[in-house]
Amino acid sequence: MQLFFSPTQLDHDPKKEISDGKLVDAVEVPKRAEMIFDALMKLPQIEHKPQQDFGLAPIAQVHDRAYIDFLAAFGALWAEAGRSGEGFPFVWPGRDFRTDRVPNHLDGKLGHYSFDAGTPLTDKTFGAAYASAQSALNGASALLQGDQASFALCRPPGHHAGKDYYGGYCFFNNAAIAAQYFRDQGAQRVSIFDVDYHHGNGTQSIFYDRADVQFLSVHADPMDEYPYFLGHADEKGVGQGHGHNFNYPLPLGTTADALMAAIEAGLAEINSFAPDYLVISLGVDFFEGDPISQFKLTYADMPAIGTLLKTANVPTLFVMEGGYAVDDLGRNVAALIDGFLAG
Amino acid sequence: MQLFFSPTQLDHDPKKEISDGKLVDAVEVPKRAEMIFDALMKLPQIEHKPQQDFGLAPIAQVHDRAYIDFLAAFGALWAEAGRSGEGFPFVWPGRDFRTDRVPNHLDGKLGHYSFDAGTPLTDKTFGAAYASAQSALNGASALLQGDQASFALCRPPGHHAGKDYYGGYCFFNNAAIAAQYFRDQGAQRVSIFDVDYHHGNGTQSIFYDRADVQFLSVHADPMDEYPYFLGHADEKGVGQGHGHNFNYPLPLGTTADALMAAIEAGLAEINSFAPDYLVISLGVDFFEGDPISQFKLTYADMPAIGTLLKTANVPTLFVMEGGYAVDDLGRNVAALIDGFLAG
Repeated sequence: MQLFFSPTQLDHDPKKEISDGKLVDAVEVPKRAEMIFDALMKLPQIEHKPQQDFGLAPIAQVHDRAYIDFLAAFGALWAEAGRSGEGFPFVWPGRDFRTDRVPNHLDGKLGHYSFDAGTPLTDKTFGAAYASAQSALNGASALLQGDQASFALCRPPGHHAGKDYYGGYCFFNNAAIAAQYFRDQGAQRVSIFDVDYHHGNGTQSIFYDRADVQFLSVHADPMDEYPYFLGHADEKGVGQGHGHNFNYPLPLGTTADALMAAIEAGLAEINSFAPDYLVISLGVDFFEGDPISQFKLTYADMPAIGTLLKTANVPTLFVMEGGYAVDDLGRNVAALIDGFLAG
Repeated sequence: MQLFFSPTQLDHDPKKEISDGKLVDAVEVPKRAEMIFDALMKLPQIEHKPQQDFGLAPIAQVHDRAYIDFLAAFGALWAEAGRSGEGFPFVWPGRDFRTDRVPNHLDGKLGHYSFDAGTPLTDKTFGAAYASAQSALNGASALLQGDQASFALCRPPGHHAGKDYYGGYCFFNNAAIAAQYFRDQGAQRVSIFDVDYHHGNGTQSIFYDRADVQFLSVHADPMDEYPYFLGHADEKGVGQGHGHNFNYPLPLGTTADALMAAIEAGLAEINSFAPDYLVISLGVDFFEGDPISQFKLTYADMPAIGTLLKTANVPTLFVMEGGYAVDDLGRNVAALIDGFLAG
C-alpha cells in the first residue's frame, strides 16, 4: 500500500485557535501528521514514494477560483494590512445578508470565505493545503494505475471545506478533489465514505446535487456536535443527487458496536451503488481519548473497523481527516489500516 | 425634549471582544451611555423622567420568540455548561448549511443566533437589552402623546440586530421596535433614518419586504467596512417593500459636506413618503476621532447635522446607536441635539 505525504504539509503550523471565547492552543498541529507517518511506516506493507505535482487544475475542478486565489493571496493581504498573528474571521454573512459581492476589506473576505472562527489562517496555509491535496491526488493516481488501496496522509484535513469556504481546520477538500479526479479520469461512479467523528459537511455540499458521486457519513449528531448545521439523517441530496447522500448521526458516547453497525449500513449502500472507486475520509477522533470528541472507541476497536471497511471490496483510497489525541493518533491509524490490510 | 434611559442598561458590561484574531478590550462599554447622559442633561431643554415598562410584547412584535428566549436563557445555559468569561460564537451556518434546526449544543445555538464573533454575550445582556428597548418604547410613547421630539439613550445599541440574530454589539433592534410600536398604535407610515457610520443591516432586513416602514441609511461603503455583507445602493426592498429601502454608501474618509449631501437625499425621500413619525438611528461614529471608524467629521460639524435633520419636520424619535470615542461621545451627541433643538 503506497503512502503519500509531503513535508510541505507541515508548514501550516498554527499556534492558537479561538474556542469558548478564548485563544487556546491549536489542536490541529503538524505533529498529528508526523505521528501518523511514523506509525504507518512501521507496517511492512506500507511504501512511501516521492510524489507527483498535479498542479492547481484538479483543485479548481472542486473549488471556486476566487476562493483558491484568496487563500493563495492571504499572506500578502495580511502583511499589507499590517496584521500580526493568525487570521480569524469575526463577522460573516448570516441570514438576510448578501453573498454575491465579495468585500474589499480583509475582514470581509475572511468572513465571506469561511464558516468558522476557530480555524487559523497563516501565510503558510495555502502551500500546505495545496500539498495536502496533492497527496490525495497521488493516492487517487495509484488506484487509477491498478493499486487496490492507497493512503493519502492529508493534513491539513479537508472534509469541512466547501467549494468556496474553509472551516473546521480544512481548506481544500482533499477527498472531494480525489473523487472528482477519478471522475475526470474516466471513472463512472465514486463513493466517498466519511468515517470521522464529525460530519463531512463540505464534501456533502460539494456533491449534494450529483448522482455520480455518492456521499455517506457516520458522525456525532449535529444537534449536539460540530459542525452543528449539517449532517442530519433527512439530508438525502437534491435534484439528480437525490438518493445519493446518506447520513448516519450517532449519539454522544457511541461505542464500537453502534459505530460499526452504522458503517455496515453505509457499506450496504455502497454495494448497491457499485462504485469504481471508494474514497474513505478517515478520522480517528471517535477514539475515547480524543480531546475534542465524545465517542468511546478504544485502541482495541481499531483493527475491526479497518477489516470491516475492506469488505467494500472496491479499490480504496484513504484520505486522512481528523483525530486530535496526538500521542495515540499514529497507533490508532496504524491499527485500523493493519486491520484493513489483513481483511 | 424628554430623555429616556435606565441604569439597568449599564448591566451589560463586557470586558473583551474578539478583533484581529485576538481578545482585545471591549469598545461598546457602559461608560458610553454615561457620557451621553451627562452631556445631554446639561442642555436646558432636556428632561429625564422615570420610565414605563412596556413588557416583552412589543419586542416580540419584531424579534422571534425563540431568539428572545435564547438571550433570556443564555446566562443559565452558560453556567450549566461550566463556561467562564463571555460568550462568543465560533462556528455558524454559512452557505449550504441548514438554519431550520436549532442545535441543542450551546456553541451551535450561539452560531445560529448571531452573525459576529466580536459581540460578547453575558448573563446580564438580556436584562440590559430589554431595558434599552424599553427606552426606545418610552421615547415612541412620548411622541404618541404629542411631543415633537424625544431621545432614547439606547445602549446596548440595536441597528445591527435582525429578527433572530445579534451582532455588532446589538441584541434587540430598538429602532425597529419603536417603529413597529408606532404602527401598532395606529400610525400609517413610519420612516427610520439610520445616521450612523455603519449600515443598519438589521433594521433594513426587518422591514425589507414592507411598504409601511421606510428605511434609509447613510454609512461607510460595506465593500470596505463592517457589516460588509449588506448596505449597497442597489438594495431597494422586495415585494411590497420595493422602493422603500434606500442606502447611501460613502467612501472611507468622508467629510461633513458629503455626509450632509447624503442626508439631504434621504430627507427628500422621507418628505415624499410623508411618514407620521420619524425614527433616527443615531450614531456619532462618523466623528474623526472614533477608534473603529474612518469618516472625518469634527465636533464643529455636529450642530449642522442636527439642524439638517430637523428640516424633516416630522415628530422625531432619536434612538442611540454607535459611537466609540468615549471621551468625546457625550459632547458630540449633545452638540448634534443642540443643533436639532435650535433648528
